[in-house]
Amino acid sequence: MTWNQEKIYMFLYELMPVREAKKILKSNLNPAKTEIKNLEQINRRVLSQEVVSLIDAPPFDRSAMDGYALQAEETFGHSEENPVHLNIVDRIGAGEVSSVDLKEGEAIQIATGAPLPSGANAVVMEEYTQSHQVHLEVETAVIPGENVSPAGEDFKTGDLILSPGRVLNPPEIGIVASAGYGEVEVYKKPRVGVMVTGSELVMPKSQLEGAEIINSNHFTLKSLVESALAVPDMTHCVDDHELVRKEFLRLLKNNDCLLTTGGTAISKGDVVVDVADELGEVLIHGVTLRPGKPFAFAVVEDKPVFMLSGFPVAAMVQFDVFVRENLLRMQGLERELNFTTKIAARKIPSTLGRTDYIRARIEGEKVRPLKIKGSGIIRSMVDSDCYIVMEENLEGVDSGEKCKVLPYHSLQV
Amino acid sequence: MTWNQEKIYMFLYELMPVREAKKILKSNLNPAKTEIKNLEQINRRVLSQEVVSLIDAPPFDRSAMDGYALQAEETFGHSEENPVHLNIVDRIGAGEVSSVDLKEGEAIQIATGAPLPSGANAVVMEEYTQSHQVHLEVETAVIPGENVSPAGEDFKTGDLILSPGRVLNPPEIGIVASAGYGEVEVYKKPRVGVMVTGSELVMPKSQLEGAEIINSNHFTLKSLVESALAVPDMTHCVDDHELVRKEFLRLLKNNDCLLTTGGTAISKGDVVVDVADELGEVLIHGVTLRPGKPFAFAVVEDKPVFMLSGFPVAAMVQFDVFVRENLLRMQGLERELNFTTKIAARKIPSTLGRTDYIRARIEGEKVRPLKIKGSGIIRSMVDSDCYIVMEENLEGVDSGEKCKVLPYHSLQV
Repeated sequence: MTWNQEKIYMFLYELMPVREAKKILKSNLNPAKTEIKNLEQINRRVLSQEVVSLIDAPPFDRSAMDGYALQAEETFGHSEENPVHLNIVDRIGAGEVSSVDLKEGEAIQIATGAPLPSGANAVVMEEYTQSHQVHLEVETAVIPGENVSPAGEDFKTGDLILSPGRVLNPPEIGIVASAGYGEVEVYKKPRVGVMVTGSELVMPKSQLEGAEIINSNHFTLKSLVESALAVPDMTHCVDDHELVRKEFLRLLKNNDCLLTTGGTAISKGDVVVDVADELGEVLIHGVTLRPGKPFAFAVVEDKPVFMLSGFPVAAMVQFDVFVRENLLRMQGLERELNFTTKIAARKIPSTLGRTDYIRARIEGEKVRPLKIKGSGIIRSMVDSDCYIVMEENLEGVDSGEKCKVLPYHSLQV
Repeated sequence: MTWNQEKIYMFLYELMPVREAKKILKSNLNPAKTEIKNLEQINRRVLSQEVVSLIDAPPFDRSAMDGYALQAEETFGHSEENPVHLNIVDRIGAGEVSSVDLKEGEAIQIATGAPLPSGANAVVMEEYTQSHQVHLEVETAVIPGENVSPAGEDFKTGDLILSPGRVLNPPEIGIVASAGYGEVEVYKKPRVGVMVTGSELVMPKSQLEGAEIINSNHFTLKSLVESALAVPDMTHCVDDHELVRKEFLRLLKNNDCLLTTGGTAISKGDVVVDVADELGEVLIHGVTLRPGKPFAFAVVEDKPVFMLSGFPVAAMVQFDVFVRENLLRMQGLERELNFTTKIAARKIPSTLGRTDYIRARIEGEKVRPLKIKGSGIIRSMVDSDCYIVMEENLEGVDSGEKCKVLPYHSLQV
């Protein structure tokens, strides 16, 4: 690639609006590949084929109750005081079919789910009958079709059941099975190389030495990627240009995209963005987001590279704003952020031209911003349950005014 | 156990209110066991210990920016036109510590995250400086503490970070790591034996014969149990007392609880409830729920046994109402159903004394019940996105009246 000097100035000295950055991300993703999976392995995967029913469901007129199949007309006018008397000519258990053709004066005992025998048009519940060997008394009237689920009542052969892009949750998996499918085509889960950079980072321990800092991003990013239904491939790298370059290439080779933290400072060259620039094209560097300004994005070897801040909270916000929806999009799932509206419990200042994601707590119809603020204050993410989102065109809202809220719970897939 | 004849009458001929059934379930669960897990394996697990920080976070006064550590007082009154001149006496990269004691007239180049050197009280961002070898010009004034995260700003050694019962999502996992823990104690995932009964049930195929019905419950129940963060152990059993009994005992031996579908008819002995009665104590048989009336619950060998209807939709509703919250409770998570309020888009009839879970779609502030109704109509679960919940004390609501809604999305953990 050739690096465009004009672009450097644009990207380094001006920040890109969040909306524009999102457009660039969306148009630089790899198309999702698909795979065939057994129904036991598709929970929370995204369907990539049309599911058209292979069968009628139910496949036959089916008894909805344990009771007796009969001709409804024979029960008309009858009651507990004046039962109709019938002969039991067969008994059908679950999974059985009767070969008897039911005639006037006859009943066939039938289990829930069994096919209605030929000649019958209704089922009377066992509770409304008395039986003595082959003799049956029916103590109520039933109408034709009563307690019968007709063939194809749920859906018919050839009906479109589900369309591509649908998340497969338990009801969807059930209906795919009912439509006759033992396996379906789903989008592949994207494999995400995750490189946490920072020479100071160490695994958790209770005695830190010198400049050591615990690498919490390793665990947060791993679980964030998992929560976006993708597969993380984790690594840590010190702030060394050559080592970062090597890891960059290795991870890109083994994965569908790359996610990094650290090394994204905007005002000067910084190791991760420098490497991305050297190996591919940096399309975003610095956005009008707070926290999370030092977000960068590149395309390297035709794969998307999301570069997040090293600060844990900034990285989480950047993931929530820029990464999750694109990891989902890579597996065929279009999904917008699910905002809601609440009343500000106190005045919330903001700056025109910047999108603020303010950690806050929902209190019924109100929302209250937390007081702590620093982008490194991971505790604020744990103590809050939503973001208040202040769009670029707002200079803040007063206490009692409506504001846009994004509950963390709504971010989950 | 001895079977109490009075109880038979109570349970078979009267239905138990949903609220009362929930109380019985809650008081008949096994206490959750715990296990120690590495932080890489705790995504969406439930914490069972107190997490008290082992360290200060950050562990030292830390630079929040790439720039120069200095004494803030020396910059007072300075600006781009009138910069202050300092000598650069050391450079601290990420992960490094300076041994230099900073004095008047001196600055130390510092990377984001590095410990503030002794003698300095602020950091000026690189953007506001010019440097030539060891000569630095600072073109702005900074205040003491500027761009410095003080030691313990986030939390201190001994601070309570998280309490037992907390679901571990990405932010929680990050803070546990930051508090110095490489592993924590979490509740064990309950192992759930799942027995789908029904002689007519077969695995999905496109050509059904005789009375065959596709066993969609196998796939729905498996994924429902997984979605409740528990581990399913699946089996299918024909409607034979001896075989059901054998499977019952085998599954109970290998699992923490048992979930069955089918064989729960209320008006007469039915195979699954009969076996439960023979092996243990049936505490619930029949509830005032629609769909889902034939729900049963027993305690067998000191383990809870949830018996669901064989009808796919009834089984899903019973799972949503009775099972999910108790599988979560078994792993330490107390979680109420998250109801919301919407306006009925049309009149919704209901029956006093019965709790109705009506499949519906949310349309902005309104909610519209689906027209299809049968408890076997699995398509209705796929076409709806919420339940309208009509409590026992309601005889329906009119179009335009408020009603209680449970979005499916809110059921997810």
